[in-house]
Parts: sequence; structure tokens; C-alpha cells
Amino acid sequence: MAFLPPHLYDLSHQEKHALLTKLEHTYKSFQEEKLHLDMTRGKPSPEQLDLSLPMLSLVNEKHYKSENHTDCRNYGILDGIPEAKRLFSWILDIPPENIFVGGNSSLNLMYDVLVQAMLYGVPGGDKPWKDEGKISFLCPVPGYDRHFAILEHLGIEMIPIRLGEEGPDMETVASLVESNPSIKGIFCVPKYSNPTGITYSEEVVKAFTKLKPAASDFRVFWDNAYAIHDIDFPGDRLLNVFEEASRHHCEERFYIFSSTSKITFAGGGIACIATGRKNLDALKKHYGIQTIGYDKLNQMRHALFFRERHSLENHMKKHADILRPKKDAVIRILTEQFANLGIVGWTNPKGGYFVSIDTLPGCAQKVVSLAHDAGVKLTPAGSPFPYKKDPKDTSIRLAFSYPSLAEIEKAMEVVSLCIALASLRSMLHSN
Amino acid sequence: MAFLPPHLYDLSHQEKHALLTKLEHTYKSFQEEKLHLDMTRGKPSPEQLDLSLPMLSLVNEKHYKSENHTDCRNYGILDGIPEAKRLFSWILDIPPENIFVGGNSSLNLMYDVLVQAMLYGVPGGDKPWKDEGKISFLCPVPGYDRHFAILEHLGIEMIPIRLGEEGPDMETVASLVESNPSIKGIFCVPKYSNPTGITYSEEVVKAFTKLKPAASDFRVFWDNAYAIHDIDFPGDRLLNVFEEASRHHCEERFYIFSSTSKITFAGGGIACIATGRKNLDALKKHYGIQTIGYDKLNQMRHALFFRERHSLENHMKKHADILRPKKDAVIRILTEQFANLGIVGWTNPKGGYFVSIDTLPGCAQKVVSLAHDAGVKLTPAGSPFPYKKDPKDTSIRLAFSYPSLAEIEKAMEVVSLCIALASLRSMLHSN
Repeated sequence: MAFLPPHLYDLSHQEKHALLTKLEHTYKSFQEEKLHLDMTRGKPSPEQLDLSLPMLSLVNEKHYKSENHTDCRNYGILDGIPEAKRLFSWILDIPPENIFVGGNSSLNLMYDVLVQAMLYGVPGGDKPWKDEGKISFLCPVPGYDRHFAILEHLGIEMIPIRLGEEGPDMETVASLVESNPSIKGIFCVPKYSNPTGITYSEEVVKAFTKLKPAASDFRVFWDNAYAIHDIDFPGDRLLNVFEEASRHHCEERFYIFSSTSKITFAGGGIACIATGRKNLDALKKHYGIQTIGYDKLNQMRHALFFRERHSLENHMKKHADILRPKKDAVIRILTEQFANLGIVGWTNPKGGYFVSIDTLPGCAQKVVSLAHDAGVKLTPAGSPFPYKKDPKDTSIRLAFSYPSLAEIEKAMEVVSLCIALASLRSMLHSN
Repeated sequence: MAFLPPHLYDLSHQEKHALLTKLEHTYKSFQEEKLHLDMTRGKPSPEQLDLSLPMLSLVNEKHYKSENHTDCRNYGILDGIPEAKRLFSWILDIPPENIFVGGNSSLNLMYDVLVQAMLYGVPGGDKPWKDEGKISFLCPVPGYDRHFAILEHLGIEMIPIRLGEEGPDMETVASLVESNPSIKGIFCVPKYSNPTGITYSEEVVKAFTKLKPAASDFRVFWDNAYAIHDIDFPGDRLLNVFEEASRHHCEERFYIFSSTSKITFAGGGIACIATGRKNLDALKKHYGIQTIGYDKLNQMRHALFFRERHSLENHMKKHADILRPKKDAVIRILTEQFANLGIVGWTNPKGGYFVSIDTLPGCAQKVVSLAHDAGVKLTPAGSPFPYKKDPKDTSIRLAFSYPSLAEIEKAMEVVSLCIALASLRSMLHSN
């Protein structure tokens, strides 16, 4: 049953107060349930991880040699065995020769590339970024908190850019990037963006390849974390930025990242960078100093598990079947509670790991805090913004993948009540 | 049969020339064999890698949870599962709570720690090392080329320090470190040092804990890569530097590294850093930005393979049994060829992966080049020195682990001939 009546805006001041008292009473009863529910992080559920269990036995006493005869148990091969490159070429639709396969974390690869840029610069640049004085990155918001944490840690200034339903506001991006050489890059999650779930439109993707950056070493960090992570079919189609860039001879502008963290095991996957040849050569030079090589046995495990593109697609459909009822429950409950009320909006992405909520201004933090005190953990409000500052305090990220369906339904009931409470208080306060 | 006669120094000029002609003839016949032998890198042989094959099946559909109930397939735990920390605490004799378990490469951990020091500084320091102007590291020589490559890449000046049979010349180390605040660290391989195979004496280890560095943020990078890698028994005993440092309240001075690269799989092992609590807290802060966590499934595989200290010790004895005949062959052939001739010296370490040869001055490069042209690859002369410059051109590293016994015997015959040739030419030239 909805916590707020459909005619909410017609209620008198007194009626709203009475409703508030009633909701506060319900809230107390939820608190008495002493819940422990968690919708904070986009991590796969145990059921999803079970899908990849057979992979664990594929590398064994008999199978440890790559198709190029490399003994994967030993040192050797910096940039990945051929079959691991091929796997990522299926995921990203990028030629294997443009792919560098790393360890278990694409975030770590992004960090590495940024550190290399800070200490040595990137091809086409004049000097290391650390010697450039103040430099900055554009950050479409809301965005991924871990990207912003790396930029902040490295002292790179973050300039927020509005992320619409088609992607970042490319007019603003172009006008900034083309006029200001201290802007060195932009961080994007182009498909099923974390947290709003939107996918960049063809026009937006094309606009990235048409930029004429003032900085000769401007880079797009294209974190394609959810490249094949559809939940509803047909899923969103993201234009292949690498193909588009090749056509415009600007492949070096893009570092494209992906991983199998949300395909196989979040803690034990493999990750990659795809980019132009000049960038790749520079990467290999740096990585050749930094390490002797990554875990090829785990690369092989993955390649043996996905022997063809088709097996990868089938596998992702199984993920979708697990995730779909959870996402649907979130959307259903939000719809039941708030449809046409005009106090809260939400996204309904066709894939990825998040639903994003837009509250009345000034309410997001209060909702998260109310939920917390009723035993439901949500991602801290502000997290999807640089310096954790959501200027209007309206954005809440809901991660629906990990809890069970029953837990999600309970958590969403609590969250809905908290939204109702915070919204009603806000309305009463502003009257 | 020895290539050089025992009375080499008594030969007349003419006799030496005749001998040279004879050796050159033999060399040509070796060349005609078109050999392809490789003694360049310290990598385990397939037979050694086979010892750990059963490990590959230990994490499977039933076993993927850590003893603390963490699902190792998922995100979570930055610094390693408890059983992986315990494994390294057996290897290093350092409490688990002082250990950070990382990915598959201890070299990458060293790089990370150095990058963190460059960008942010280390506990006890005033500022990031990159803002300190010129800084330098002491480098005991001959040493490990990959350490020097990282330092050179980061623009840290390298000051060579003579490595004797007991370790680095600690009087020189102390006088430099205690007077010069721009010296920020020293790189050590304290046991079965790469390449000479020596182990630091108790006095040398103690001297490290008694240093009073001029730089408050001076650090010892203690790469204990061969901590339990004995070949002859009893092996060398290395004093526990961490225990000693705790007694002198200077644990923060030491970053101690190790890995299972030469225990299980060189490409698919796990690695660690052990250090004081303040350093650990700083490391965790940085790593918490850089990554979400390392591959815990591989950590678990290792912990299940070595369930107790005893199983680890037994395993290392099997490595020793494979390595011993190879090392013995190297030593036997060098002894047969050059005992008491006074033209070449060599080490006979009780463990590790290398035998180190000392030629007549100016001969090392020639020997390596001659061997190369006869189909035997050796580590490039100069590699074990900063900037690849061996001032006297005398040091050659022999890596005996990878080739088969028959290959080693053949390779050492060729190498011996090359040493004989280069030495004889040098003697003739200096007459």
C-alpha cells in the first residue's frame, strides 16, 4: 500500500501533519524489526557467482598451456595470452591486437594509466601531467565514486558535467575541452552508466571522436564496465567508439577499460585496456618495468570457460534472469508508491547494476540517513559526485544485485517510507 | 676435459697463441652444433611447476569460502584473507597482522610502494619524494636488474654499494645514509642474493636496524624473494630483520617483500608486503583508492595447498631435489675447468636461483657475446648493475633453474670455453 495518497499536493497543512505522524509511527515499527539490509554496492549475488563455478576446474593438471604453447604457470607474456585478448575482443568488439590484458581489477588499470600519465605523460603530450601545473578532468555526474576517488587522490581537479539521458552534455564538454588545455581528460561509463543506468546515444559517442581538444594529450577514460550486461532484451546498443575513432584517426584519444568482474567472479576476474597502438606501446613500456606479467592461469581459466562468443552471450542471459526480478521489484515498488506524485523520479535501465533515484531538493541525505537508522544501508548520498558533493542533494543510488528478492522487497518498502517521510517534511518545511 | 692447462700462467707467448688457435677451432665446432640454450632468467623449470599442479583443483565448486566465511569469489577484503596472511607469516616469520597480501607480483608491490612514496611520501616524511629534488637509493652490487629498472624509471639516482660475502659494506652504507638526507632508501635481496647468492650475516642485518638515517623517511626495501629457497641443507640462516627492528622500534624503516612465484607458479603466485603498522595503514589507504581488492581465490588456492608450515617445508625440499643436481653441475664444470687457475671465480650458494661468475677485468661482456654466438643465451653482462654498467666488466649471472641437466652440462661446456677464450685473449692482449 502506498505511504502517500495520490492527492498529496491537495492536502491541507493539518492533514499533512497528521499523515506525517502516521508515517513516523510506521517508521518506528520498521525500526523495531531490527533489519540488516544492504543495497550499497554493485556486487554480484552468490547465485550469480555460482554460474561461473565450473570455470574453477578448467585449468588443472592437464590444461595449463595457452594455445600459443606458453606455459601459463611460468613467467612470460606481459600483455595477455591470445585467447584472453580474443575474449575481450568479443566483449568490446575491438581487435585483439589493440588489447592489453591485466590482472583482476580494471580500476587498478585505470589507476596505473593515470599514474603513468602523471609521472611520464602520454603519447602526444609535451610533459608529465604532474609538471603541467593545475590539470583537470571532466566528470559526468552523477558518476562512479571510485573514478572520482582516484582523481581526487592524484590531485586532479574535477569539473562536473551534467549527464542527461543521452550521455554527457556534449556542447559543454566540447566548449571546455576545446578552449582549455589544462583539461586532460574525461571519465565515462558509456553503457548502463553507474549510477543512472543511461547509455550514451550515437550522437554523443560520435561527438567524442569529433572533439578538437586544446590539449594534445587529452584522453577519454571509457570505462565500459557493463558492455554486455543487459537485463531486458533487446538491451541498449552502444556505438563502438573505437571503430568510430579509427575512422577519425583518433584511437589514441581513448583508453577503453573492461573486466569480467561482473561476468565471472568479482574478486577473481580479469581486466583489460583497449587503445591505439601508440598508447599500447607506451603502456607496455611502463608495465614492463612495473611487473613481470599478470596471472595467465586465470586468463586461461576464463578463455576455456568462454570458448566462443555464443557461450559468453548465453552466460550473460543467465545473469539477466537472476537480476531481472530484482530490478523489476525495485521499479514496481517505486511505481506503486510514487507514480504521478511528482516528488521523486527514478531510472529504469535495461541493464547494469543500479537504479538511480531523484528526490526533492535537499532530501537525498535525509533519506539515506533515515534508511540507515531503520537498518537499510544505502550508498552514501553525494557519493556519485566529485568531492562527494551533490549540489542539490537529490541523488540516491540503489544497488539491487546482491540482496535476495525478499530482502529487496523489504528494503524498498523501508526506502519508500523514508522517501515519503523526507519529502513530506520538506514540503511542510517549505510551506 | 679442461680447456686450459693447469700451468696456464707459465705458457710462453707462442704456446698461448697455439692454445688460442686450438680453442677457436673448438669454438667453431660448437657453433656448428647450432645450439639453442638459455640460462638468462631465474624461472622455475616445468618439473618444478609440476610440484604445484594439485593446487589448481583445490578451489572448486565446493571450496571458495575463506575460514572467516568471506566468499572469495566476490569483492571485499583489501589486504588479504587470513589464511594467506598466515602462509606468508610462515614464510617470513612475521606476525600476520603486519602482512598485506597483494596480487601475483612482488615486483609490482615494490613499484606500487615506490610510486606511493613518490606521489605522497611515506609516514615520517615531510613531503612526497617527487618534491624533494634529487633523491637517491643505495644499490648493493651486483644486484637485481628489475629493482634498478624501477628506480631508473622513477628518476631515482642509484649509488652502487659493494656487496661482499656477508652483505653490503655497512660502514659505507651507514656513513652515506647518516650524512645525506637525499638518500631515501636501499634495495636488498638479503638471502641468496640475486645474483651472487650470498646471505647477509647477522652483523649486517643488525647494522640495518642500528642506522640513524639523516632522512626521517629512509626506507629499506627488503626483497626476501628466496626466504625458504634452500638447495643444500642446512641452508643459510638469515636473521629476522623484522624481529630485530621491533626490538629497536624501527619496524617502519622496513618494507619486506616476498612471493610464492618460486614456490608454486611463477606466473600465478601471490605476493606480500610486511611492515610496521603506520606503513601498513598508509599502504591500505593508497591501495584502497587504487583497487577494490586482489584475487582472493588464488590466495585461497595457496592456503589450501599449504595447510601447515610443515607442508610448505616438504614442498620446498622437492624443489631443492630438482635444483640441486643442476647447481652441482654448474659448480662441478666450473671446478673441473678453472680450479686454481686464478682467472675466474664463482659463488656456490646454498640456495636461490643463481651462480655468479667473476671473470678477469674486461671479459664479462666478451664471454656473454661469445656464448650468444655459439647458441647459449646468458643474462646480458652489466645487467646486475645500476644503469647496466659493470665498472670492471667482470660479472656474469648464470641462471641454472630452467634448463634440463643435459642442457646445463652442454651450456656450461660452451660457457667454459668462452671464458677460456676471452681470458686467454685478454692475457695475450695485456702482455
